[in-house]
Amino acid sequence: MMGADAPSTVGAGAAETAESSHQNSTIDALDSPESIAAEVSTRIEVFLESKAAEFLAISPDAHDIGQALLDFTRGGKMIRPVLLWWGFQLAVGDDQSRDRLAGGVAEAAGSLELLHAAALIHDDVIDHSDTRRGKPSLHRRFEARHCERRYQGGAEPFGVAAAIVIGDICLALSEELFEKSQTVLGITSSARSLRATLRRDVMVGQYLDVLAEVVPLEDERIGERAWEVLSYKSAKYSVEQPLLLGAALGGADEDQLAEISRFGLPLGQAFQLRDDVLGVFGDPAATGKPAGDDIREGKRTVLIAESMKNLSPKQVQFMAERLGDPNLSDAEVGECVAMLTESGGLDAVESFIRTKYDEALSVVRQWATAGPHSDTARTKIGPTALDQLERFAEALSYRRS
Amino acid sequence: MMGADAPSTVGAGAAETAESSHQNSTIDALDSPESIAAEVSTRIEVFLESKAAEFLAISPDAHDIGQALLDFTRGGKMIRPVLLWWGFQLAVGDDQSRDRLAGGVAEAAGSLELLHAAALIHDDVIDHSDTRRGKPSLHRRFEARHCERRYQGGAEPFGVAAAIVIGDICLALSEELFEKSQTVLGITSSARSLRATLRRDVMVGQYLDVLAEVVPLEDERIGERAWEVLSYKSAKYSVEQPLLLGAALGGADEDQLAEISRFGLPLGQAFQLRDDVLGVFGDPAATGKPAGDDIREGKRTVLIAESMKNLSPKQVQFMAERLGDPNLSDAEVGECVAMLTESGGLDAVESFIRTKYDEALSVVRQWATAGPHSDTARTKIGPTALDQLERFAEALSYRRS
Repeated sequence: MMGADAPSTVGAGAAETAESSHQNSTIDALDSPESIAAEVSTRIEVFLESKAAEFLAISPDAHDIGQALLDFTRGGKMIRPVLLWWGFQLAVGDDQSRDRLAGGVAEAAGSLELLHAAALIHDDVIDHSDTRRGKPSLHRRFEARHCERRYQGGAEPFGVAAAIVIGDICLALSEELFEKSQTVLGITSSARSLRATLRRDVMVGQYLDVLAEVVPLEDERIGERAWEVLSYKSAKYSVEQPLLLGAALGGADEDQLAEISRFGLPLGQAFQLRDDVLGVFGDPAATGKPAGDDIREGKRTVLIAESMKNLSPKQVQFMAERLGDPNLSDAEVGECVAMLTESGGLDAVESFIRTKYDEALSVVRQWATAGPHSDTARTKIGPTALDQLERFAEALSYRRS
Repeated sequence: MMGADAPSTVGAGAAETAESSHQNSTIDALDSPESIAAEVSTRIEVFLESKAAEFLAISPDAHDIGQALLDFTRGGKMIRPVLLWWGFQLAVGDDQSRDRLAGGVAEAAGSLELLHAAALIHDDVIDHSDTRRGKPSLHRRFEARHCERRYQGGAEPFGVAAAIVIGDICLALSEELFEKSQTVLGITSSARSLRATLRRDVMVGQYLDVLAEVVPLEDERIGERAWEVLSYKSAKYSVEQPLLLGAALGGADEDQLAEISRFGLPLGQAFQLRDDVLGVFGDPAATGKPAGDDIREGKRTVLIAESMKNLSPKQVQFMAERLGDPNLSDAEVGECVAMLTESGGLDAVESFIRTKYDEALSVVRQWATAGPHSDTARTKIGPTALDQLERFAEALSYRRS
C-alpha cells in the first residue's frame, strides 16, 4: 500500500504525466477500502495536528478547535475518500506515476472528508441532532463543555455558536488541504472546477433539503424536489463526484469522465435511496439511529413522495399531521411506517434501487471487457478490480447500516 | 478608472511581471474608494448573477439563494476590497501591467467581500441580530419568508437553517471568485497562502469572540483575550491582510509585505478600537445601532477589559450582573456606560487609538520619502497618494459611524 510521501512536483501536472505514459494500461487490483481509509486518516490527523499547533500559537483558547476536529473526524465511513482514490486509480492505471503522486491523492481525499465533516457539523445544528457516529454531535459537546467549565450565559446557544464557527473552520481547512494536495499533484484546472461543483452541489442540495421539509406535503413538486435533494445533496456529492475528482486528478479526459459518471451517478442514487429506506425501516441496532427516525424528522424523501402518490387525500392528511413531529409515539410512527409499505412506496423505492444498481453494474462490466469507454479505451480493469467495484456497489446499494 | 476585463494570462504570475518592470516606479495617486467600490460591486453582481443562473438550473427552488446573496452584498462599506486594491497599487506602482490585471484584482477584492458577507451572515445567527446594514439580517428575512409563503414548521428555525446554509454557500462562492481571479493574475503561491491565513484568522478570531462572551468577567485573561479577538477577528482581517493580499497579488516581496504590515496592523487595531468605542458611546443616528448595543450584547472588548482594571470588586460584580443581559433598561445601560468613562477605560482606549494611529501614519510618511522599505525601496508614493492614505487612516480611526 502506498504510504511514503511523494516528492513535490509543483506545476508538473498529473494530467500530462498520466496522458503520456499509460495508454491501454490495465488495472489489476484497486487498493482496499481499509488501507485507503487508514492512509487518509493518517493524513488528516497529521494535517489537523499541525493546524492545532497554529491555533494554539494564536491563543491558548483556540487549542480546543483543533482537538474538537480531531475527535470529530475519527470513525467516519470514508466512502468519499475511497471513491476519490479509486477514481484516481482508474484514470492512472497501474502506471508508475501512481506511487509518486500517492501523497497528494491522500491529501485530496482527506480534503473531501473534511468538507464532509463540515457539512455534518452544520447539518446537526440544523437538524438539532444529539448524536453523530454514536457520539454526541459537536454542538452538544460544546454545550456540555459550557456546563462543565461553568461558563456564563446559555449553554445551548454557546454550543450552536461554537459549532457554526468550527464548521466554518473545518470548511476552510478542507480548502487548505486540497490546496496542499495540488503542490504534489500539479494544478489541474479540471480538478479545481470539479471540486467547486462538488462543493456547490452539496450545499445547494442541503438548502433544497431544508426547504423541502417546510413545503406542504400536498405540494405538486414534492417528487421532483425529493429527487433533486437525493441527487445533489448525496448521489453526486457522495459517489459520482469523488470518483470524477479522483479521475481528474489522475489526468482523465472528458470521455473518461463521462464514462465514470455513467457508473457513479446511478450508484450514488442507489446509495441514497437505500439510506432513505434505512431511515424508516432500518434496524436501530445496525444503523445506530432510533426506529423511524426520518418520520419524526420529517424528511421528504423519494420514499415519502412515492408513497404519497397512492394515498387517499384523507391518508395524505394523516401523514401530513405526523411527519416532522419530534414527539410522535412509537405507535404513531408505526402507523406511518405501515402506510409507506401498504401504499407501495417501499416497493417502488426497492425497484428504483435495483434499476440503478443494475445500471451501474452494467457500465463497470463493460469496462472489464472494452475499457472505460469504447472508442478511446485507455485503462482496462482486470477481474480483481471488477470484483472489488461490484462488491462495493452491492455494499452501497444493499447495506443494512 | 480601470474597468475593462484583462485578457487571461494563466500561469503568467503577476509576481514575475511586477518584479521585472517597475523597479523604483512612483505611485502618484491611488484610485478613489468610491470608484473601487463601484468596480468591485459590479464584479460581484456579475458573478452572483451567473451563479444564480447555475442554481436555477439545479432547481427552481434554488433561485432564492442567488437573489438573497445579491441583496445581502449590496450596501457594504467595502473597506477590505479598497485596501486590497490599494495594496496591489502600492506593489505594482504606476506600471503598465496594472490595467491588464485590473479585472483579476477586482475579482480578488470581490472575493474578500463575499468572505465578509459569509462571516456576517453566520455572525448574525450567532448574535441573534435582527438587522444588518439597516435591513433585516438574512435569517430574519428567511424567517419572514416562511410566514409569507405559509410554510410548515417553525419559522425561526427555518430562518436559522437557511442562513447557515446560505452562509456556507457564500463562503464557497468566495473561494470560487478568488479562483477565478487567479486565471487573470496568475497563480501566486504567496497570495494563496496569505488568503488561507486571512480566512483562518477571522474564523479563529470569531471562535475566540464567542468564547470570550461566556468566560467570567473576573477571569485573569480578559485583557489578553480582548486583544486576541480585536487583532484576529478584525485588525488583521479587515485592514492588514487585505493590504498584504493585494500587495502579494501585485508581486510584492517579503520586505515590502513586512513594511505593509507595519502600517496595516496598527491601523487595523485603531479601526477596531474605534468600533468598540462606537459600540458603547456611538450616536445611534450615525451608527444605525441602538445606544449601548455592545453592553446588552455582552461584548468583551478592550474597552471593557481596560475599565475592569480600575473598578472595585463590588463594581466588577455590578458590571458582571448586567453585561450581556439583552433586557437591560436604558437607565441600567447608562449606569454601565458611566462606569466605563469614570473608570478611565474610555480614556485608555482613546489613548491606544492615538498611539496606533500615529504609528501607522509615521510608517506611511516614511514611504513618501524613502519608498516602502528603506533598503530595497521599490515603489515610492507621491504626495497625492500619501494624502489619500492619511485621510483613509484618519477616517478609520476617528469615524463616527
